[in-house]
Amino acid sequence: MLSRQQLIQQIKQKKSFLCVGLDPDIDKIPLFLKAYPDPIFEFNKRIIDATKDLCIAYKPNAAFYESYGVKGLQSLIATSEYLPKDCLSIIDAKRGDIGNTSGMYARAFFDKETTGMDFDAITVAPYMGIDSVTPFLEFEGKWVILLALTSSVGSKDFQYLQTGNDYLYEEVIKKANTWAGADRMMYVVGATKSTEFTNIRKYAPDNFLLVPGIGAQGGSLEEVCKYGMNKDCGLIVNSSRAINYASNGEDFAEAARAEALNVQQQMQVELEKAGII
Amino acid sequence: MLSRQQLIQQIKQKKSFLCVGLDPDIDKIPLFLKAYPDPIFEFNKRIIDATKDLCIAYKPNAAFYESYGVKGLQSLIATSEYLPKDCLSIIDAKRGDIGNTSGMYARAFFDKETTGMDFDAITVAPYMGIDSVTPFLEFEGKWVILLALTSSVGSKDFQYLQTGNDYLYEEVIKKANTWAGADRMMYVVGATKSTEFTNIRKYAPDNFLLVPGIGAQGGSLEEVCKYGMNKDCGLIVNSSRAINYASNGEDFAEAARAEALNVQQQMQVELEKAGII
Repeated sequence: MLSRQQLIQQIKQKKSFLCVGLDPDIDKIPLFLKAYPDPIFEFNKRIIDATKDLCIAYKPNAAFYESYGVKGLQSLIATSEYLPKDCLSIIDAKRGDIGNTSGMYARAFFDKETTGMDFDAITVAPYMGIDSVTPFLEFEGKWVILLALTSSVGSKDFQYLQTGNDYLYEEVIKKANTWAGADRMMYVVGATKSTEFTNIRKYAPDNFLLVPGIGAQGGSLEEVCKYGMNKDCGLIVNSSRAINYASNGEDFAEAARAEALNVQQQMQVELEKAGII
Repeated sequence: MLSRQQLIQQIKQKKSFLCVGLDPDIDKIPLFLKAYPDPIFEFNKRIIDATKDLCIAYKPNAAFYESYGVKGLQSLIATSEYLPKDCLSIIDAKRGDIGNTSGMYARAFFDKETTGMDFDAITVAPYMGIDSVTPFLEFEGKWVILLALTSSVGSKDFQYLQTGNDYLYEEVIKKANTWAGADRMMYVVGATKSTEFTNIRKYAPDNFLLVPGIGAQGGSLEEVCKYGMNKDCGLIVNSSRAINYASNGEDFAEAARAEALNVQQQMQVELEKAGII
């Protein structure tokens, strides 16, 4: 479990605000791993070992594991157990339902004794409002990372609807700020919309923002930092595919490390520019 | 797999538009079931056997199964396999993510060969827009049941925001109608807002509406039918807790049947009133 202060400390120490997404696709992982009893966990384990000094968070995407049924869930549980304790562990699950059901999802990902999983944070969808979000916050010290602005084409459908003077995604942030402070609530903000960060920082000056969309989804790290960084950094920038599939040969873990190192070095420059380190 | 026509036929034949929610809570199911290797499946199996001639759909809530980890997923898979083919099988999962991730969720619940699950329909959250929804529709014949208006307190937070001339939930329906027709798209509409059905029928005259909130959540069946029924019925009304936990003794299945029969009889009256049967 990582508190806000511990997270900031990790960022300064590692000179990085990189989150490594763990989205293992059995059709893309190196062939030789298929000889192992749990190829997906084996893949993740080696990616983690190769990158853990360069990143401050890991984010398995629940869908990838669920798509392999029971075996996939077993891989996810094994991965959850293996994640280094000094990194924020995020389950990217985009859950959200009425109160008692969200409470069940919270147990699924936060209650180690029951399910074997003990993530620090979960991504949550806002559509169903307060009672879909607060059950996750009832688990002491756990983080909610609420969808605000996403980076894919569908973000235009509803997130940019004008609701009075605001866009819907701004309304989501304003309202969710009344449910929890920056010590428990983060927001997902897609990196293809760099200029929107200025806007978001008006409403969420202190919150950490989880930024997908660097690399395969096409965002620019420099732009994100220019508009989105705050005095504590306030950014967790994710890269999944670019790191996971840097190579599909036996050298995949070294290739992943090289890619992560490349991103970390750019991040170090940004942290220095901002006077954070 | 049930087509729209087959679903309408089932409703007329069974004189029912009842969906039985399968939300097994290990702390609430009868004690004696705990002697079985898979108490949750055993519970579901008996509820299904006791109600299958009275309902036209079953809806396991994914969260309840996920909260028991691997065992829970095994119970969900066994339940999926056991569901009668003449009933619509709905996985209530409230998923939604960028395109390739929604595609993975679709595989998780629709691709029997990979995960053992083969639901006819899935509930989906709309916040991320088109690319979060269409991957589910790429599975031939499968249904998306999109969240529109929900019945809990949090529905006020965003669903009722005014976006131009419409509420957000109306905008969701209008836009989603351009993604698929009434033969593939249903909407979740909470039953505590009966008068809103009139409103929703303006935008979704032909779509089936999945209505949670009868029973424990407090909706009135008569009101729902008055405002929400269309010429094909167009309603699937869910009851979970009232049926699942009608008794916690050895007679739980008979008690569940009695409760389901009670609802079915009310439904028959409504179908007759509307001249559908």
